[in-house]
Amino acid sequence: MPKLRLFTPGPTMVPEEIMLEMARPLDHHRTAGFKEMMKEAAENLKYVFQTTQATPLIITGSGTAAMEAAMVGCCAPGKKVLVAHCGKFGERWRDVCKRFKMEFVEVTAPYGHGIKAEQVAEGIKKAGGGFGSIICVHSETSTAAVSDVAAIAQVARQNDLLMMVDGITSVGAIPFKMDEWGIDVVVTGSQKALMLPPGLGILGVGPRAWQVVDTFDPPCYYNSLKAYRKSAADNDSPYTPNNQLIRGLVKSLQMIRAEGLENVWARSARLAKATRAAIQAMGVELFAADPADSVTALKVPAGIDEGKWRKEMRSRFGIHAAAGQGDMKGSVVRFNHMGYVDEIDTLGAIAAMEWTLADQGFKFTLGSGTAAFQRAIAAR
Amino acid sequence: MPKLRLFTPGPTMVPEEIMLEMARPLDHHRTAGFKEMMKEAAENLKYVFQTTQATPLIITGSGTAAMEAAMVGCCAPGKKVLVAHCGKFGERWRDVCKRFKMEFVEVTAPYGHGIKAEQVAEGIKKAGGGFGSIICVHSETSTAAVSDVAAIAQVARQNDLLMMVDGITSVGAIPFKMDEWGIDVVVTGSQKALMLPPGLGILGVGPRAWQVVDTFDPPCYYNSLKAYRKSAADNDSPYTPNNQLIRGLVKSLQMIRAEGLENVWARSARLAKATRAAIQAMGVELFAADPADSVTALKVPAGIDEGKWRKEMRSRFGIHAAAGQGDMKGSVVRFNHMGYVDEIDTLGAIAAMEWTLADQGFKFTLGSGTAAFQRAIAAR
Repeated sequence: MPKLRLFTPGPTMVPEEIMLEMARPLDHHRTAGFKEMMKEAAENLKYVFQTTQATPLIITGSGTAAMEAAMVGCCAPGKKVLVAHCGKFGERWRDVCKRFKMEFVEVTAPYGHGIKAEQVAEGIKKAGGGFGSIICVHSETSTAAVSDVAAIAQVARQNDLLMMVDGITSVGAIPFKMDEWGIDVVVTGSQKALMLPPGLGILGVGPRAWQVVDTFDPPCYYNSLKAYRKSAADNDSPYTPNNQLIRGLVKSLQMIRAEGLENVWARSARLAKATRAAIQAMGVELFAADPADSVTALKVPAGIDEGKWRKEMRSRFGIHAAAGQGDMKGSVVRFNHMGYVDEIDTLGAIAAMEWTLADQGFKFTLGSGTAAFQRAIAAR
Repeated sequence: MPKLRLFTPGPTMVPEEIMLEMARPLDHHRTAGFKEMMKEAAENLKYVFQTTQATPLIITGSGTAAMEAAMVGCCAPGKKVLVAHCGKFGERWRDVCKRFKMEFVEVTAPYGHGIKAEQVAEGIKKAGGGFGSIICVHSETSTAAVSDVAAIAQVARQNDLLMMVDGITSVGAIPFKMDEWGIDVVVTGSQKALMLPPGLGILGVGPRAWQVVDTFDPPCYYNSLKAYRKSAADNDSPYTPNNQLIRGLVKSLQMIRAEGLENVWARSARLAKATRAAIQAMGVELFAADPADSVTALKVPAGIDEGKWRKEMRSRFGIHAAAGQGDMKGSVVRFNHMGYVDEIDTLGAIAAMEWTLADQGFKFTLGSGTAAFQRAIAAR
């Protein structure tokens, strides 16, 4: 009886009621019913983005498609892009700049650390101006570190730059306030805090960003912000949308709204804090110096075979933890706190970690992790 | 009791067993199980494309994403593209050329007609060479007309050009033979003959096309053929794939394989032929002079309110027929023959047409359409 529990920071677990909602007979997308779904999804995405001004856009594609749409659409030719990165996903934004031959300047932090606003301010000063936008990952999924995008957005405002945020593992998981913080563009994906399978890239594009979008014609057809804006005005999609996932999105946003966004954030924070306490109680080190509450990364203890460890957790207990990415493969393991995951699931993940670490001869008190987890949850 | 039957040429009807397959608990995509799915899907896509040489690639996105990937990846700078178009979807390829500032020459046919090989040969001669590729829609979904891509591919071969085919409503619906015809690139989508919801753009890229792909770096990141080829070699995906739809794809390809591709083609052809006979027997004109067997378009009879007609078919009988696109809106109605549709469904669509036409005072013998349909099917 394999009872799988995805603890990967995307795809995350999808509620059965969403899976069943998506299994209902499919209707066509050129219908009044589809437009109603799009209208409701857009309204609730504004709530999740915490914006009244930005336009939500839904692209059929991975988060990377939405990312490309944001970059190609909002980074005007002749203006430099400041890419603030501290992990694999931030590096992907830099690679997008390279591919599209955009001029860019990098501000970096070591893996596990977040980007600080002062670094960004200094980066701008050092490069001597000419910038159009700043792009930064809010919650860097590869290292489980959080960057202070609220403070970085202030730097953007002071320098009259667009502030673009990769919120793929922050929106709907940790506090993100588009209007209050002055974020111009945010990108997210369906398979994270939105509790859906992969397949939708979602954006929020604010009024300052639209002003820039309207100044040039970018080299893109499918990932065109202008095409999506035109259709969104009529609650429609420029190309055939994945209306199965959009039906699921309507449902998942209803669930988030019913729980309340602050409560969703608090749940992820609670699980993250208790997970960190459990890991440390077991004598295992956390990877991130600036830990995000959407995902926790730990350092694989010396002497532990990471591949074998994760495999055992999955095969014996159905707990699927994520491996490290790139250079971090083998030395980092990650656990998700986004979306459809609760105390019981996470307690189980801690226990699975303990049983399988003990099997590999790791020296610690069995039960120390779960006890610390329980205490941390009780202390809320 | 609304019992909906999608007769739109995409999305088409999805078998319940595929919907339920996709409702099963979702696994992660970085697993051996996902690679097995990708491997099986690739093998069966080769069968559906009728190729042993081409590489199947699966992009999370609409068919348009795959289309853009093909154009941007295979149309080398400095070489002209011959865009042969005769409907809204062919025009979209031209628009992609424009957006990416590719040099192109158009060869066109009036709506309802297919492109002939002689036209293409003449177009090449007239423009005085300098071409790199020909792009043509096989079954033009907007007009329900078919173009002779097999003959056009011969012209491509004679001129040493890449032959790129939009097979979005031909692959898996009407005979399409990639290797035998010498097609270099084919594009299709999940929501047509493959009997799935929208959300996957699928390509087949042959060896001559790869040679061209390798000669330059195109302006694309997400829709990058090179990125997908690299991952496909390991049965993987470069960006987070819609693994829910890929699971559905595995199932749908198994169903096509079990029925046999020739039998699938024969079923669509039989339904198309009988539908055309029925429409003509009712005294209604067909739209296409070169009708495709994947979709049938009819001319809305004088005095009939098209919007009201389609609305009535849907609200009273659950038959959702497609409207005309662009200039054809109001004057054309279309019925699908691709994928999960059979004689009983289609007989019902003919009957719904008859009842609702009679209501609007159209003069014809009620039952003449269904009788002609039955005779045509009986005569197989």
